[in-house]
This record gives sequence, structure tokens and C-alpha cells, in this order.
Amino acid sequence: MAIAEISVVPIGTGDPSVSEYVAECIRALDKADIKHTLTPMGTVIEGSLDEILEAVRMLHRVPLNHGAARVLTKLVIDERRDKDASAEQKVASVRKRLAGS
Amino acid sequence: MAIAEISVVPIGTGDPSVSEYVAECIRALDKADIKHTLTPMGTVIEGSLDEILEAVRMLHRVPLNHGAARVLTKLVIDERRDKDASAEQKVASVRKRLAGS
Amino acid sequence: MAIAEISVVPIGTGDPSVSEYVAECIRALDKADIKHTLTPMGTVIEGSLDEILEAVRMLHRVPLNHGAARVLTKLVIDERRDKDASAEQKVASVRKRLAGS
Amino acid sequence: MAIAEISVVPIGTGDPSVSEYVAECIRALDKADIKHTLTPMGTVIEGSLDEILEAVRMLHRVPLNHGAARVLTKLVIDERRDKDASAEQKVASVRKRLAGS
Repeated sequence: MAIAEISVVPIGTGDPSVSEYVAECIRALDKADIKHTLTPMGTVIEGSLDEILEAVRMLHRVPLNHGAARVLTKLVIDERRDKDASAEQKVASVRKRLAGS
Repeated sequence: MAIAEISVVPIGTGDPSVSEYVAECIRALDKADIKHTLTPMGTVIEGSLDEILEAVRMLHRVPLNHGAARVLTKLVIDERRDKDASAEQKVASVRKRLAGS
Repeated sequence: MAIAEISVVPIGTGDPSVSEYVAECIRALDKADIKHTLTPMGTVIEGSLDEILEAVRMLHRVPLNHGAARVLTKLVIDERRDKDASAEQKVASVRKRLAGS
Repeated sequence: MAIAEISVVPIGTGDPSVSEYVAECIRALDKADIKHTLTPMGTVIEGSLDEILEAVRMLHRVPLNHGAARVLTKLVIDERRDKDASAEQKVASVRKRLAGS
């Protein structure tokens, strides 16, 4: 299992707002039953490498399918083999250190 | 005002865990009184462009000051001039669209 | 066709150098016959969305298959539908503007 | 000395082309005498952390000063303390490994 953050931005739409496209991406993730959390700068998804890449394929096409002529998709994948680490555990691990300091 | 996401990763430490370095970054942001939110893949900060770049300068040095020989710092800055938009408002704007759909 | 930049970084290896892993990624791209250009901060690849995601799947696993316990993969995909644009054309387009100024 | 890659993208301009903005960024780097190399997905710059952050401050404002209502700036900084490493040396180090294989 890996953790990823993805952001998909339409270019050249004539409107500085992108929330409509982000909402459409969240609907697609809901429909595909992929675990996700919306953050102010992207969407965190969790799953196997294959599931993450399948989500990227799907979300990258959202703006193109909704009229945008160009899209920039940004992805970061974090995977470790030495222990299980969910998105929640990653944040909890930092908070635990902060509480102990 | 702008919104940014920053992640600072030490390279070559011999330990796959980076939570100690992330905790040290959060302590530095607390001390500097910079508005921030920890997410599973980075830290969201809000402020003027100058405040954000000052935070980058500070956080980029954290791993180097704690023994790492190499550091990779990743930053995304999102700034718009047509309306005020906080990190909270960005997420709320997407949720509102989802609720209305 | 789309253009992408990918960087794959092993975490916790005990060695600040990553060139061995990057070389292994380039060998994998050569073998898979995927068009690529090495830059100082990543590798630019060109192809269909499917080819790009297949390259990501392959390269993300390189450090894990060579002993790294953790890997961070960063990807940006740029795709436009209004005109053909290769990596070379993108750079040429900027240079033409600079020459004309 | 550190190596960085920066990309600055205007959002909501109504035109999928961004080469005009990129050219303006290159002109600004030339004028400020900051070492840079244009790549298909961004611009690689080299200098001290302070010089890099000063370049980010300057380039982030280019689209806003040229009519864009919103801008997304992406930055990666790579700094190592164990040895000198220029952008050129990073690429050469990978090529040397490939030649030896």
C-alpha cells in the first residue's frame, strides 16, 4: 500500500477558479470507491500502486473531458516496505513526537 | 495572501522514517507563529509571499542542521488576486459544490 | 501525446548519492523504448497517458527492487488538446519568443 | 550552493499557451544574472538558498504582473553538504554510471 497526493489543474479556461474541476475529481474518486481526503492543495489517496495509477489516469482526464484544452497533473507517491503506514498513521507519528517534546 | 504546501525530505540518513524531521519543522513554524496545517504529504502554510519564502528558508535548513547530508524541499505556492481565498475557503468551496450536486 | 517529468528518490539508504538509482531508471526507459531526456532535476518522458503511467509504474519500483525501504516518486504530466506539442517544441516556442524580443 | 527547478503557471488566462510567461521569466533571470537552464517542464537554477528564493519571489510575480489573476508556482530545491554538485555534475554522474554499465 502507498500514499499519494494528486492535483489536477486546467490551463487556459478563462476562469481562475478550479473548484468545479476538483469537485468532479472527488465525485470520480467516490464513484470508484478509492480512499481519499481533500486537502487545501491536493487530494490524498491511498491504495496499491496500481490503484493510485488508475486514479491518476481517471483524474487527469477530468478537465479534458470538461472542456479544458490543457491540463497539468501533479502526483507524489510515497511507498515504504519496512512497515505499514497509512496517511493517518503518518500524521499521528509526527503528532506523537510533538506531544513528547 | 497566498497558500503553499511544503515538504522537506532528508536524503541518505539511513532511516526510512522522516517524522522526526517533520516534527522539527512543525516546531519551527509554531515558534515563528506561521499559520500551518500538517497533512499526510506535506504542510500547508498561509501568509504573504515573503512569509512563505521565509518559512521555506527556515524549513529547508532543518534536516541540514540535524545531521542530514542532503535535503530535497518541495514547494507549491497558489496565489490569486481576484478574491481572498484561505486554505479553509478552498476546501469549503469544493465541498459546497459537492453538496449541491 | 503528453509530456511528463518524473523523479524517483530512495529514502533511508544511508547514502546521499542517488545517481545509481537514476542510472537504473534510465536503463529501464531505454529497454522499454520510451522517449526520455535526463535533466538535472528529473527525467522528461513523452508518450500517451498510458505509456507515461506505465513508465511511472516501472520507475517507482526501481529503488524498491534495489534495496531501498522507501521511495518518493514525483510526477508532473502536461497534456494539451488544442495542438501537438513535443518537449522540444515547448522549449523552441519559448526560445522563439526570446529571440523576437 | 543548491540546485532548484521552478515552474510558474498562470491560471484562468483563457489561453492554453504559457510560453509568453515563461519567456518573461527567462528575461527576468537573465537580467538578474542568475544561472539558469530552460527544460521542457521547468527552469533549472543554481545558486545559494538565498539566491534561489530571491528568484522564486521574482518569477512568482511575473504572471501576476502580466495580467494573470492566479498563479501556481512549483519549486524543488536539492542541496547537499557532503560534496559540491552542480546541475551539470548531477547529469554527468548518471551518464558516467550508464557508460560504465
